[in-house]
Amino acid sequence: MTESRLRIFTGNANPQLAHDIAGGLDMEVSAALVGAFRNGESRVRLDDNVRGCDVFIVQSTCMPVNHSLMELLFMIDAARRASAKKITAVVPYYGYAKQEKKTTGREPISAKLVANMIATAGADRLVAVDLHAPAIEGFFDIPVDHLRAAPLLVDHFKQEDLSDAVVVSPDAGGVLRANDFRQRIGVPLAIIAKQRPRPDEAEIMDMVGDVKGKTAILVDDLVSTGGTLTEAAAMLIDKGARRVWVAATHAAWVGSPAATEARKLLNNSWIERVVITDTIQVPPDQRNEKIQIVSVASLLGEAIMRIHKDLSVSALFH
Amino acid sequence: MTESRLRIFTGNANPQLAHDIAGGLDMEVSAALVGAFRNGESRVRLDDNVRGCDVFIVQSTCMPVNHSLMELLFMIDAARRASAKKITAVVPYYGYAKQEKKTTGREPISAKLVANMIATAGADRLVAVDLHAPAIEGFFDIPVDHLRAAPLLVDHFKQEDLSDAVVVSPDAGGVLRANDFRQRIGVPLAIIAKQRPRPDEAEIMDMVGDVKGKTAILVDDLVSTGGTLTEAAAMLIDKGARRVWVAATHAAWVGSPAATEARKLLNNSWIERVVITDTIQVPPDQRNEKIQIVSVASLLGEAIMRIHKDLSVSALFH
Amino acid sequence: MTESRLRIFTGNANPQLAHDIAGGLDMEVSAALVGAFRNGESRVRLDDNVRGCDVFIVQSTCMPVNHSLMELLFMIDAARRASAKKITAVVPYYGYAKQEKKTTGREPISAKLVANMIATAGADRLVAVDLHAPAIEGFFDIPVDHLRAAPLLVDHFKQEDLSDAVVVSPDAGGVLRANDFRQRIGVPLAIIAKQRPRPDEAEIMDMVGDVKGKTAILVDDLVSTGGTLTEAAAMLIDKGARRVWVAATHAAWVGSPAATEARKLLNNSWIERVVITDTIQVPPDQRNEKIQIVSVASLLGEAIMRIHKDLSVSALFH
Amino acid sequence: MTESRLRIFTGNANPQLAHDIAGGLDMEVSAALVGAFRNGESRVRLDDNVRGCDVFIVQSTCMPVNHSLMELLFMIDAARRASAKKITAVVPYYGYAKQEKKTTGREPISAKLVANMIATAGADRLVAVDLHAPAIEGFFDIPVDHLRAAPLLVDHFKQEDLSDAVVVSPDAGGVLRANDFRQRIGVPLAIIAKQRPRPDEAEIMDMVGDVKGKTAILVDDLVSTGGTLTEAAAMLIDKGARRVWVAATHAAWVGSPAATEARKLLNNSWIERVVITDTIQVPPDQRNEKIQIVSVASLLGEAIMRIHKDLSVSALFH
Amino acid sequence: MTESRLRIFTGNANPQLAHDIAGGLDMEVSAALVGAFRNGESRVRLDDNVRGCDVFIVQSTCMPVNHSLMELLFMIDAARRASAKKITAVVPYYGYAKQEKKTTGREPISAKLVANMIATAGADRLVAVDLHAPAIEGFFDIPVDHLRAAPLLVDHFKQEDLSDAVVVSPDAGGVLRANDFRQRIGVPLAIIAKQRPRPDEAEIMDMVGDVKGKTAILVDDLVSTGGTLTEAAAMLIDKGARRVWVAATHAAWVGSPAATEARKLLNNSWIERVVITDTIQVPPDQRNEKIQIVSVASLLGEAIMRIHKDLSVSALFH
Amino acid sequence: MTESRLRIFTGNANPQLAHDIAGGLDMEVSAALVGAFRNGESRVRLDDNVRGCDVFIVQSTCMPVNHSLMELLFMIDAARRASAKKITAVVPYYGYAKQEKKTTGREPISAKLVANMIATAGADRLVAVDLHAPAIEGFFDIPVDHLRAAPLLVDHFKQEDLSDAVVVSPDAGGVLRANDFRQRIGVPLAIIAKQRPRPDEAEIMDMVGDVKGKTAILVDDLVSTGGTLTEAAAMLIDKGARRVWVAATHAAWVGSPAATEARKLLNNSWIERVVITDTIQVPPDQRNEKIQIVSVASLLGEAIMRIHKDLSVSALFH
Repeated sequence: MTESRLRIFTGNANPQLAHDIAGGLDMEVSAALVGAFRNGESRVRLDDNVRGCDVFIVQSTCMPVNHSLMELLFMIDAARRASAKKITAVVPYYGYAKQEKKTTGREPISAKLVANMIATAGADRLVAVDLHAPAIEGFFDIPVDHLRAAPLLVDHFKQEDLSDAVVVSPDAGGVLRANDFRQRIGVPLAIIAKQRPRPDEAEIMDMVGDVKGKTAILVDDLVSTGGTLTEAAAMLIDKGARRVWVAATHAAWVGSPAATEARKLLNNSWIERVVITDTIQVPPDQRNEKIQIVSVASLLGEAIMRIHKDLSVSALFH
Repeated sequence: MTESRLRIFTGNANPQLAHDIAGGLDMEVSAALVGAFRNGESRVRLDDNVRGCDVFIVQSTCMPVNHSLMELLFMIDAARRASAKKITAVVPYYGYAKQEKKTTGREPISAKLVANMIATAGADRLVAVDLHAPAIEGFFDIPVDHLRAAPLLVDHFKQEDLSDAVVVSPDAGGVLRANDFRQRIGVPLAIIAKQRPRPDEAEIMDMVGDVKGKTAILVDDLVSTGGTLTEAAAMLIDKGARRVWVAATHAAWVGSPAATEARKLLNNSWIERVVITDTIQVPPDQRNEKIQIVSVASLLGEAIMRIHKDLSVSALFH
Repeated sequence: MTESRLRIFTGNANPQLAHDIAGGLDMEVSAALVGAFRNGESRVRLDDNVRGCDVFIVQSTCMPVNHSLMELLFMIDAARRASAKKITAVVPYYGYAKQEKKTTGREPISAKLVANMIATAGADRLVAVDLHAPAIEGFFDIPVDHLRAAPLLVDHFKQEDLSDAVVVSPDAGGVLRANDFRQRIGVPLAIIAKQRPRPDEAEIMDMVGDVKGKTAILVDDLVSTGGTLTEAAAMLIDKGARRVWVAATHAAWVGSPAATEARKLLNNSWIERVVITDTIQVPPDQRNEKIQIVSVASLLGEAIMRIHKDLSVSALFH
Repeated sequence: MTESRLRIFTGNANPQLAHDIAGGLDMEVSAALVGAFRNGESRVRLDDNVRGCDVFIVQSTCMPVNHSLMELLFMIDAARRASAKKITAVVPYYGYAKQEKKTTGREPISAKLVANMIATAGADRLVAVDLHAPAIEGFFDIPVDHLRAAPLLVDHFKQEDLSDAVVVSPDAGGVLRANDFRQRIGVPLAIIAKQRPRPDEAEIMDMVGDVKGKTAILVDDLVSTGGTLTEAAAMLIDKGARRVWVAATHAAWVGSPAATEARKLLNNSWIERVVITDTIQVPPDQRNEKIQIVSVASLLGEAIMRIHKDLSVSALFH
Repeated sequence: MTESRLRIFTGNANPQLAHDIAGGLDMEVSAALVGAFRNGESRVRLDDNVRGCDVFIVQSTCMPVNHSLMELLFMIDAARRASAKKITAVVPYYGYAKQEKKTTGREPISAKLVANMIATAGADRLVAVDLHAPAIEGFFDIPVDHLRAAPLLVDHFKQEDLSDAVVVSPDAGGVLRANDFRQRIGVPLAIIAKQRPRPDEAEIMDMVGDVKGKTAILVDDLVSTGGTLTEAAAMLIDKGARRVWVAATHAAWVGSPAATEARKLLNNSWIERVVITDTIQVPPDQRNEKIQIVSVASLLGEAIMRIHKDLSVSALFH
Repeated sequence: MTESRLRIFTGNANPQLAHDIAGGLDMEVSAALVGAFRNGESRVRLDDNVRGCDVFIVQSTCMPVNHSLMELLFMIDAARRASAKKITAVVPYYGYAKQEKKTTGREPISAKLVANMIATAGADRLVAVDLHAPAIEGFFDIPVDHLRAAPLLVDHFKQEDLSDAVVVSPDAGGVLRANDFRQRIGVPLAIIAKQRPRPDEAEIMDMVGDVKGKTAILVDDLVSTGGTLTEAAAMLIDKGARRVWVAATHAAWVGSPAATEARKLLNNSWIERVVITDTIQVPPDQRNEKIQIVSVASLLGEAIMRIHKDLSVSALFH
């Protein structure tokens, strides 16, 4: 009887990350055709045998979001029908995570619909990084390994002198995340309490906490249009901050029609530095000296290997 | 106690058709926000109350296919969570229908995955027109009302003298459809037996049947790149056909990057006339004198009203 | 054919509230035996016919939590097997809501397990008040009507002069809730950023925002041991607050072995007033002049009637 | 690749039995926190890694029944989310088993609800001992290994001279069980045909069969209030029985508010000896010379090891 | 909007009963084709519209058992796909009911598989008469209305003088049923305690209770081969019974290859009279003066009408 | 820990094939009792231990179709409850495959119902040969290995000189199959375009393509009544064919009441040779010199061994 073999596949959302993960494990990404027919339908064919294999499919559901998601689902379906032993959806960036509750009547809970889709397609497990709301883990009944990028980001920041730093949450919803971050480096907390009347709209209100003369580190899970953060940075400078840095996990502006504008906003802002991971790949032409990228490839590789070998993954949770 | 009310919503795939359906029933399309956030995620909010209502959501899953499909799913999810009494997905054009079986190992059966998604999202019934493979009806366990456009198309053709016509199937897979069509108008059948080694590739082989001096009506369920049909037309003319018409249900080229090319192909081809329905809307700038559009709005409106009133829909099947 | 009739049943968790709801609708609570056999097993028998009825079962899953929950599940099962048309679980206080995510490896997500149990037992809809985490709504695929007690609480407070008030979140996780509350009355926000290393443990850290000379209103979803709030009150007084009030929805200390201690803590604390609802009934002998109770009966009654009549419930969401 | 490892966990219902099972297999019970928060909610955390393990959770759903059941469910949920390979619920005493059918309209079928809960929580298999109704096995679609304590009990009795014994069923519902028992020791059968108009009520009627001058062994699956058995014993003595013994599997009086009364009843009754197993642990202070305990630990240990090693368990069925 | 209409369909198992039920309700059985293709496959087509209707399908799963069952399933599937509002499977005789538990390892629990099939096919409710084991009701999660023929049978017997009667259970498994029966007419009980080592095998052992000079009424749920009952009758006569009658619900010998033999057995036996219902139709040529048939048509008709009108059915349970 | 062992069981549909498969793998068919009780109910007991085993159940659902199908389902249920590790239903001939879509309103989609039954019973995978419609693969969400007999049939034919052959599809629905077949041997195609107004009825219409002086090979998936093929053969001879051969996979006439007639039809027809496989066993007394049988045992054996060893099965698809 053959042993259960490890297979890593990638969709088109972030193939570089998949190759970096595989490379770190001294493996190749398995061969597959993942494209589209001329009629716009996704087209998937796994070229390596997966029968009885432990299959990991790496696919951030980043822009184009719906397309990335459907690619993931078709790949899962293909692996299931091809008798894979276990199918793990590795979704470094989980799109729709901000639509995890209804803000008014007659809305979908899109993050749950997505969870239902992934489970129905046949995934046996999900691996994700920094879900916008941790409760999304409970949207699944399959096991979820929810990894945190914070230790990687904190390590990066610790190369600097942080004695005068203050961690700032850019909104009321992010206080838990910012509080966790500031405890990791042992500095005070400040909070910008903006009001967000509708999703995707932002209105900065006021601030609690003291940033005068300090290095303010704005912590968020993702950078989208950049609007919130640049306004926050302006307020922080206005309140006397010495400089403003940003720490975030997901480069969610990438692929957006507003990407150019987002980059301009950041470039022209008071933000001195944006430290971000490669759960979504920032294309070379969108990088500049302000943007510093920390890779999650080794984190995900370690998780995949531990899952494959039935070792505890909890250690990577924190 | 209030009566169950009828609600018709539309996504962005073919709002014109939805409005035509509603108009034919002396109704309005219900108010809803169906758009996208700047991060590319679909955004849905039903503005009219749907609690206890009989909800119909009109959305062809045409290009951009994955986006249209996800819009449909989010609308279903929103209606379900808002306590709709019954949710009927009206999908005039069902994308991914040609991926209804595996052509090689380790492929998805995408049409089934789509069916599972629609059912999991919460639809109680599906209405579709001319599914590429009738067995797709069996991919669902919810009731499916599978309508046929053939009577509408045949009525259109019967305005002409068809005494010299021959119906031609452009490939072996379409013979049943062509045979049904020719019986409706009472003319002979010819078949082009091409070989399609892989999905999306076409290779015309040879023909059985006699078309000399006749009006050849090529019958297909959809027109995609136009390549198959123009090659078929050339062969038919070569075999002595007097002229070549096309009858098809779905204008699947619309929205494709190859749409311009498809139009050129058709314009420069031996095809004299393309009769097609509005399950997918042909934009005004893509119409010309060769293209004649037959609307399915009244067919769908009749089906919706019969479903709502619990009358038999079978009469519309044939 | 008979009309669908409305039935309200109650378990043993909060029968007074059920009777208040029914009374407000000029109805009686339907007859049922809900007790226990001598072997400790719950025993349920619905005495009124429910066949074809619109059944609402009112049961907070408060202490004894597991017993209250199982009573609810058996009542749902009985109603389903007795051919109820629709079964709505009305759970004013949703126990286990704080266990909505894993804080370390190898924990259950108890709030999701509870959701799965309710859905599997056969509920068609959930009505809840102030879920600890709004994402719990997404733990369900059945419709959830998530009502908010904030308008009732705010109305109560508005009987006083609030010109010098400040709303305080007692921890980082409650900032969104406090921010929403303060916007309803138009006053500033302060935040106590404690660290909660493990569930059920609390460690108050420091505060951001200004409370000097003000009426500080601590806002939380529930009052459990009272420990967090009394420590917060002490800090607020220490920071110069003129007086400290508490606004919360769920009297979660009731039925606890620590109830007596909790009451003592509150009585001896700097807290001047605790405004709380009757989602969990505070027994007469646990009330005193500090505790003011605002009833949610009319809110729930209105929701039940709107659900029964298929009217929009969204208006009650905010 | 690591081997699938065996893990035995225990809830709070009968930890002694779990330790006896593990001890018999030269193992330790795995470390876990299974307790309750101060708000009465169960709290579970598995401390040993279970990823890829063959997990057995030992938990009788005895008093406090609902609490024991929920502990079991949360432990299963935790193990599933922690990626256990297989989860077997070992439920030596299956509570709610007597509520396996409706005795009147509008009752739950509680034993089925419990089965649904266990399966929904994520158990892959159930091991139980002497289910009140064997058809409960069919309430599950997961495999059930239904073990019988009768061979252990019979072995115990066979230490005595049974030549003058007669096995007595204390009611009409237990005749099959008693008939099986008497065949194992080769003695005649007598039946007490009481009528049980409602669950939990008992009314002894009359007897068929001859017990004069004999050792009457009353056989039942459980001893609850003791009322039925003491009345039966009185009748047997009245009918001329020489002495009365009881053989039963589950000490279901334990933990009951009526436990003291039950013990008094038994002590003051004509029953000379009660032979019972440790599926429910009789606390030392409730034991006396009348009560003889036969352990099922080795039976369950053998079953666990055979399941783990994929050996047949059928041999243990009889 | 149209009202929900009542439809009664029948398969080929017992069309006479269906017509009697419908006739009693002043209705017609709805038109349907239920037959078989020449390749042996069942063929079903409902000819009356069922959209939005309250559909009842009358089909005993009697011999040929598997064929009757599959007919039922296909009819349910057809009704579901045709958008019936509610589908009730009316299964007067539920085949496979005696296979409701495993008697040894590696057997199916066939009665549960059948239940799963009926629910998966799309039935919303089951109506059955005298299930062999009442726990089969719990094999379903859809509502089950479990009717009892005992009142009809007892009424029939009460036309005679029963002052000297004794009710006899022909085996240990039927004691509960016999005990219920004798209580309805107020006479004593006797029990034949045979041992049934394997399903379908019978070995009569001995008897408890007194039948001397009495009219012994053997009560069973079904008469199959007649072997058990004729042996029981012989023993009863041997024990001094004046005469032997049989009361049973299901004429399960009908359609059996052993039917002729069964009839001979009964004819030549000590049994004077067999009172049985028409849940399974005894064909005219198999009737004789010993066999008296009591119809359940009015009982089922009453149940159907009460279900359709949402009236309580509990009254018919006893 | 023991290795996962391979077990092959057979029902009564085609035990010879199962033994041939096992024999080719140097194995024995595992011991099981698969029969029927005298009341017509199927009876199943697996005698070899299957706990943790890789179980294959070989059962064509041929005549008696419903009985064969139920046997298969009970065997799956028994294996699941006995803790088999994986259960593969090997269904060489999949009955009901021609009922894979609705031809009119209010019909079942029987092939889908059968698929749902197989999955609900607990099968983990299906192996089938030449499904009438390939889309049936999509009726399942479990993996399906859909094998093709064409290579075996073609190999058989290639023993002859095929230079003058033409492959003929006997109807419009079989053109794809015939086209595939003729490509394998490199000869032209002809098509008989009959109209089949209702399932099981046939009406031959006319022909396209040239057969004059040729060896016409009629290709179909199954031979049922023989009517279609004998009429086709007559037409082919009439059109000048030199001789007519038939190639088909399933001997679906076997077990039919019309089997004798079918054989007569074939014997007296213009058909010179029928090449068919043993997915359904042709009994020795129904064979004659016209019928040549090609065994699929080695194909199925190879598939089973590849599945068991997690090797690719795709190679066997074509």
